[in-house]
Amino acid sequence: MRMYDIIEKKRDGIELTEEEIYFFVNGYTSGDIPDYQVSALMMAIYFQDMTETERALLTKAMVESGDQIDLSDIAGIKVDKHSTGGVGDTTTLVLAPLVASVGAPVAKMSGRGLGHTGGTIDKLESVPGFHTEITNKEFIDLVNKNKVAVIGQTGNLTPADKKLYSLRDVTATVNSIPLIASSIMSKKIASGADAIVLDVKTGAGAFMKEIEDAKELAQAMVSIGKNVGRNTMAVISDMSQPLGLAIGNALEVKEAIDTLSGKGPKDLTELCLVLGSQMVVLAEKASNIEEARQMLDDNLSNGKALEQFKTFLASQGGDPTVVDNPELLPKARKQIEVTAEQSGTVQTIVADQLGTAAMMLGAGRATKESEIDLAAGIMLHKKVGDPVRKGEPLLTMHCNIDNVASVVELIKSSIIITDENVKAPKLIYEMITE
Amino acid sequence: MRMYDIIEKKRDGIELTEEEIYFFVNGYTSGDIPDYQVSALMMAIYFQDMTETERALLTKAMVESGDQIDLSDIAGIKVDKHSTGGVGDTTTLVLAPLVASVGAPVAKMSGRGLGHTGGTIDKLESVPGFHTEITNKEFIDLVNKNKVAVIGQTGNLTPADKKLYSLRDVTATVNSIPLIASSIMSKKIASGADAIVLDVKTGAGAFMKEIEDAKELAQAMVSIGKNVGRNTMAVISDMSQPLGLAIGNALEVKEAIDTLSGKGPKDLTELCLVLGSQMVVLAEKASNIEEARQMLDDNLSNGKALEQFKTFLASQGGDPTVVDNPELLPKARKQIEVTAEQSGTVQTIVADQLGTAAMMLGAGRATKESEIDLAAGIMLHKKVGDPVRKGEPLLTMHCNIDNVASVVELIKSSIIITDENVKAPKLIYEMITE
Repeated sequence: MRMYDIIEKKRDGIELTEEEIYFFVNGYTSGDIPDYQVSALMMAIYFQDMTETERALLTKAMVESGDQIDLSDIAGIKVDKHSTGGVGDTTTLVLAPLVASVGAPVAKMSGRGLGHTGGTIDKLESVPGFHTEITNKEFIDLVNKNKVAVIGQTGNLTPADKKLYSLRDVTATVNSIPLIASSIMSKKIASGADAIVLDVKTGAGAFMKEIEDAKELAQAMVSIGKNVGRNTMAVISDMSQPLGLAIGNALEVKEAIDTLSGKGPKDLTELCLVLGSQMVVLAEKASNIEEARQMLDDNLSNGKALEQFKTFLASQGGDPTVVDNPELLPKARKQIEVTAEQSGTVQTIVADQLGTAAMMLGAGRATKESEIDLAAGIMLHKKVGDPVRKGEPLLTMHCNIDNVASVVELIKSSIIITDENVKAPKLIYEMITE
Repeated sequence: MRMYDIIEKKRDGIELTEEEIYFFVNGYTSGDIPDYQVSALMMAIYFQDMTETERALLTKAMVESGDQIDLSDIAGIKVDKHSTGGVGDTTTLVLAPLVASVGAPVAKMSGRGLGHTGGTIDKLESVPGFHTEITNKEFIDLVNKNKVAVIGQTGNLTPADKKLYSLRDVTATVNSIPLIASSIMSKKIASGADAIVLDVKTGAGAFMKEIEDAKELAQAMVSIGKNVGRNTMAVISDMSQPLGLAIGNALEVKEAIDTLSGKGPKDLTELCLVLGSQMVVLAEKASNIEEARQMLDDNLSNGKALEQFKTFLASQGGDPTVVDNPELLPKARKQIEVTAEQSGTVQTIVADQLGTAAMMLGAGRATKESEIDLAAGIMLHKKVGDPVRKGEPLLTMHCNIDNVASVVELIKSSIIITDENVKAPKLIYEMITE
């Protein structure tokens, strides 16, 4: 078998076989197949696409290229949630204890990553003492005992995906549905979940700006999941404006506490209930969505979800008293309001620009080496559709830096106020189950 | 400027600028841009094509990536001919002295190369004493004195093309019209010709099997030539069967002598007159094609073309008496006839298969290291459309090897005889001048 023939075949739009897909994935991982042949193949895939069978095989080959996490010692059906990434997305912080509170095991492997804010681990580290440096055995024991634990990325998961992604990143082949879908799904599958709920974001703050692209990606991932034997569904949700009100690490932990207390922002609460009830059903802790939603709703009201969060934080060294005293979380030296320059209705909050503003304030990493300021970020006071008077605060910047002029400018260009009537955007666009 | 953006732009079908094209050609030649980005770009070009402007700029950038031959010390307009390669193509051996015989300067840089037979230099080396190891100065002096000389490839011509071609060869991106056209034209232009006549072959023995592809390639090359200020035209000629009767090095020299004496095969003579009269007009030695053709025709009859060949051979150390005594050329130990197994009309002679048979007999190189047997090859006795009787010789194999069973088998599968009426194929399909 020759890599040349595989490139030529894909270039000509012919479906690759299982043998051919494993040949190039394994050959590339081992270094036997050079970058320049693989980048040509990636570009050919960009133009010629992959069939559902090819996508599933590529995902499987990437999963099998490295370690796979074995969660079989955890009782029950392990359901993982994955979001394609947005701005101010506090859902994981809420969902992990919320879903665990109804008995569904949540074994979360998470990362730090680049972006507007830190990853889930960074956010949780806002809680004094909290750490994710635990062994796999401790992780499994914790989930069995408390139904929820979070661990940092461990083992050599999907080395093929890492190598392919790095190459795609420098050869303009990232933006390809079959390659994005197989990359995401390979990581989820290697992480050991039995079932997967995907939150595919769409809008200005999302990777997929257009709903049709988001839908295509969602369908691709659901198809891969089903093809490799993992029950998978996707929710397509809005990311035209930031989700909830907080963008930042400690700020989002505070927002998660509010939400778990039943006092969170409406959109964040609703999305957590939608995603959570899908997770609970897949975990077979409820027989239908309505029942699942009721269980979760109850636990937001009766304090069980919040209690679960405390237990979770304490079990990984975190100070659970932050839940009742959020002022124990890191706090920025300065709180600076940005006010409305005219009266009217908020028409647009450009999510990705506001995310960049939060990063500039210190909330996120621009490069791997950047230090995160856990206290920094943005708290919104208005969302799209809200009425606003001239001089009223639109948001508060939390920061420890002095020169915020350029951040303020970016923020002002991101929030548009209009005289016209504007409705809040739809939150959930579609549910994709096949 | 970043290579990433150039790949992305081409991937999205946007025309590249002069700056961008020079950036990637120079960066790749110098090693600053890695193979894996260039192969992704080549695949994007494969799918998105290049505009006429881009093709010309790519060609220019490749020409300027290395040495350029300066023929300005040769008086007159230097017209080069390039063939896209076929089987038994003796045209260069005939055209060089023929065109020179009417006063047009022929400064031919040639190679050895891989293939069914050797290159023009290998063929000429069948003439005892002939050599092409001359200095650039001697080369120019010879053309000024005798109107014709041949030199081996000299200097570091189009290093960008060499590097790009090697990469395309292993990434399934050879077969792209803009890339083929710019590759060929960059070499011709760097070799210093003022004007170029292209012989684009089509049919089973050619790189372009289909006439439409040949036409597209011809138009692409003519457009590049005109865009970079070199008068260029192309003839699309048949290569469904071998050209002329000889396939082999010494055998083709003998055939060239016959043709220059006015006694050559009809198709080879005709193609030489067609290509030659275009060259003569471009060299401004005749005011129109009819006049040019008459001049060339005259010199085939009156012995001037043959005389020019003798002078040419002698001027580069060759024994000119071979022209009158072709038995002085290398002769194979064995001549083995392959005869017809049925009576009828020759329907097909699969050119590339017969070329491979000649190579197996020793006439060509399979790898750079292969030794050529200058005496080896095939002499056809029949061409498509010729009637043949059972047992009559179809061709004679000339060789110094003993086991020819597999060659005979290949030859037999390459020549098809039918009961039906078959006409000789058209020789010249089209003239492309823009």
